[in-house]
Amino acid sequence: MNEQASEPSSDKISAAASSQAAPVPLRVKVELGARAYDILIGEGLLEQAGALVASISSAKAAAIVVDENTRPLYADKVSAALDAAGIRSAVITVQPGERSKSWRGYGEVCEAILAARIGRDDLVIALGGGVVGDLAGFAAATVRRGVALVQMPTTLLAQVDSSVGGKTGINSAVGKNLIGAFHQPSLVLADTRVLDTLPAREFRAGYAEVLKYALIDRPQFFEWLEANRDEIFAGGSARAEAIAECCRAKAEIVAVDETETGDRALLNLGHTFGHALENVTGYDSSRLVHGEAVAIGCAMAFRFSVALGLADPAHARRVEAHLAEAGLPSRLAHVRGGAGSVETLLAAMAQDKKVRHGTPTFILAHGIGRSFIQRGVESQHLRDFLLSELRSNG
Amino acid sequence: MNEQASEPSSDKISAAASSQAAPVPLRVKVELGARAYDILIGEGLLEQAGALVASISSAKAAAIVVDENTRPLYADKVSAALDAAGIRSAVITVQPGERSKSWRGYGEVCEAILAARIGRDDLVIALGGGVVGDLAGFAAATVRRGVALVQMPTTLLAQVDSSVGGKTGINSAVGKNLIGAFHQPSLVLADTRVLDTLPAREFRAGYAEVLKYALIDRPQFFEWLEANRDEIFAGGSARAEAIAECCRAKAEIVAVDETETGDRALLNLGHTFGHALENVTGYDSSRLVHGEAVAIGCAMAFRFSVALGLADPAHARRVEAHLAEAGLPSRLAHVRGGAGSVETLLAAMAQDKKVRHGTPTFILAHGIGRSFIQRGVESQHLRDFLLSELRSNG
Repeated sequence: MNEQASEPSSDKISAAASSQAAPVPLRVKVELGARAYDILIGEGLLEQAGALVASISSAKAAAIVVDENTRPLYADKVSAALDAAGIRSAVITVQPGERSKSWRGYGEVCEAILAARIGRDDLVIALGGGVVGDLAGFAAATVRRGVALVQMPTTLLAQVDSSVGGKTGINSAVGKNLIGAFHQPSLVLADTRVLDTLPAREFRAGYAEVLKYALIDRPQFFEWLEANRDEIFAGGSARAEAIAECCRAKAEIVAVDETETGDRALLNLGHTFGHALENVTGYDSSRLVHGEAVAIGCAMAFRFSVALGLADPAHARRVEAHLAEAGLPSRLAHVRGGAGSVETLLAAMAQDKKVRHGTPTFILAHGIGRSFIQRGVESQHLRDFLLSELRSNG
Repeated sequence: MNEQASEPSSDKISAAASSQAAPVPLRVKVELGARAYDILIGEGLLEQAGALVASISSAKAAAIVVDENTRPLYADKVSAALDAAGIRSAVITVQPGERSKSWRGYGEVCEAILAARIGRDDLVIALGGGVVGDLAGFAAATVRRGVALVQMPTTLLAQVDSSVGGKTGINSAVGKNLIGAFHQPSLVLADTRVLDTLPAREFRAGYAEVLKYALIDRPQFFEWLEANRDEIFAGGSARAEAIAECCRAKAEIVAVDETETGDRALLNLGHTFGHALENVTGYDSSRLVHGEAVAIGCAMAFRFSVALGLADPAHARRVEAHLAEAGLPSRLAHVRGGAGSVETLLAAMAQDKKVRHGTPTFILAHGIGRSFIQRGVESQHLRDFLLSELRSNG
């Protein structure tokens, strides 16, 4: 096993996967030269984690980072699979929720990884949703100045977004995700079976990110989503194909702009408004989760595009209709406990990472699948738009 | 100024430098492709910091990180120079000493950088010794997932070592520098005039790192140091040339092995033993500073090489003699308060970052300027050697 593992090869992934009697997973390659890696999407990948990890790494030990919710569901399964492949593992448990993406949470995970004697040739596994992926990923990026990372996302949102592309980080007192690193995983295992037990609200929230990829530059994918939404929510091959298409979309963008100096910013469609909403609701998941904020943010980006005379109102209405059918919010009025004032929203936006020299960057659209990066929107236009959005709350 | 700054160019550095009536600095280029940068070594560079920074960056703001000792000496000077170049600056002060390289120190610097509204196109300046460079560098690597860094080292040690090569980080509960990132600076300004006011002990400690480069692979540099030691300690052109030669040596190694997967480990000559000594003395600078630990570590690496039958004892004696002439320690007996036991030294070494799969890596030498990487030294040989070193303490 170790000899085989010493020469990582993509071919060995399929060999390892097919040696177990599971369906062959879908595979998306993220083309990043020496840092290229595969995303595998399919049923039962966690049971095969040991062989799959061993096919791309010579690690003798792994730190598995989980939260208290995912630990009882998957930690033993992954640990046993690693054991069978000769990889010792230690399980590191964090509190569920955004609050773990803190200075304290980050420090504790790093110290626990070191205490588990994870060396430079070993690895960190992020087994969970976006919070665990961001937190464990940042720890992996910085423990011993970087150890290998395998993402095993267990939510739809993490499978289509946060586990791919190498963004890791924690929240600062000033704002969300303001501390972090770009640290590409060595492998992503998106086990679609874990989504069967995901709470409905969380699945819907993840679907907002699926929709986002369609809105950015995939009009045909949008039509396919309109036609297949029920089947995606029910599970099965449509679900796996939707996830794979999102991963392809993200992989394409990441491959041309790894550190977001250009087109990668398109992935922030819905996020400038979305992050501001998460900020004003205090990252309180009982009021708003990330995907819901992105859903409202995407709808707002389209309405803002209409308000600026850039897009046809019919496109904004079609986006809203699809969000409503998926059970997702699309308006500030949908935020439990209110979305604050124009001033609090503007203040929250001013702290966005994407602010350059004081000017916020928006992702706007000429229509569905025709988004673009807009720097330097006039602040009065933004103010007027937010006011009209808040007024239409009633 | 800003228009000029929008197109970074090495040629502009000399233009900017020579427009002031200061001597033309020595220049060493670190060849790292898109991340290549210059190290400038010369008198009065801090006064020219504004023009020099503007020639390689379009930053409109800078966070200047200093400690309480360097702040009164240099912060106003650099701030004024930046002002003159149209760059707003905020000064962030940390406690002097290794203890600032802590989770808390790191978090505070990051939050202060964000509070100072440093954007992705702005920069962080590390103005100080190795601690400030490592700490501010790690903050720069991770605030907003990375902002540009300019190193302005104010100690000999930082000018020849820590400011070049991109290693940044803080200490963990488990050991020194176990948390961090590779983050190359965009520019290094080594103002040799600041060394005139450096305490003698600190200058000597820095000289240990100068000597290290000679011992690694520069036997002629070693002879030159033997002949010019007095002049280097006195200041002037020999000092600047010694610093430049060290930077050339480091730049060569970093260019071929940026993230220490191979030959860069040679730079750790003296450091496996040295870090262990710092660890057992609790990073207490009244007992031992880093450069002194490296001095003893280099001498031990040569004696260990002799003990293993790899080097002629005459080479080890010549290293010890040069250290003694420079006023530097070379033996465990020279550690104030003692160097612990074999067990505490072995335990400290086992936590070194360079440990891979449990086997410590040593840099040994066949002679002066003929060092090599030795993995998998037998633990009994190491134990015997440490015992003989401790016994020869009396």
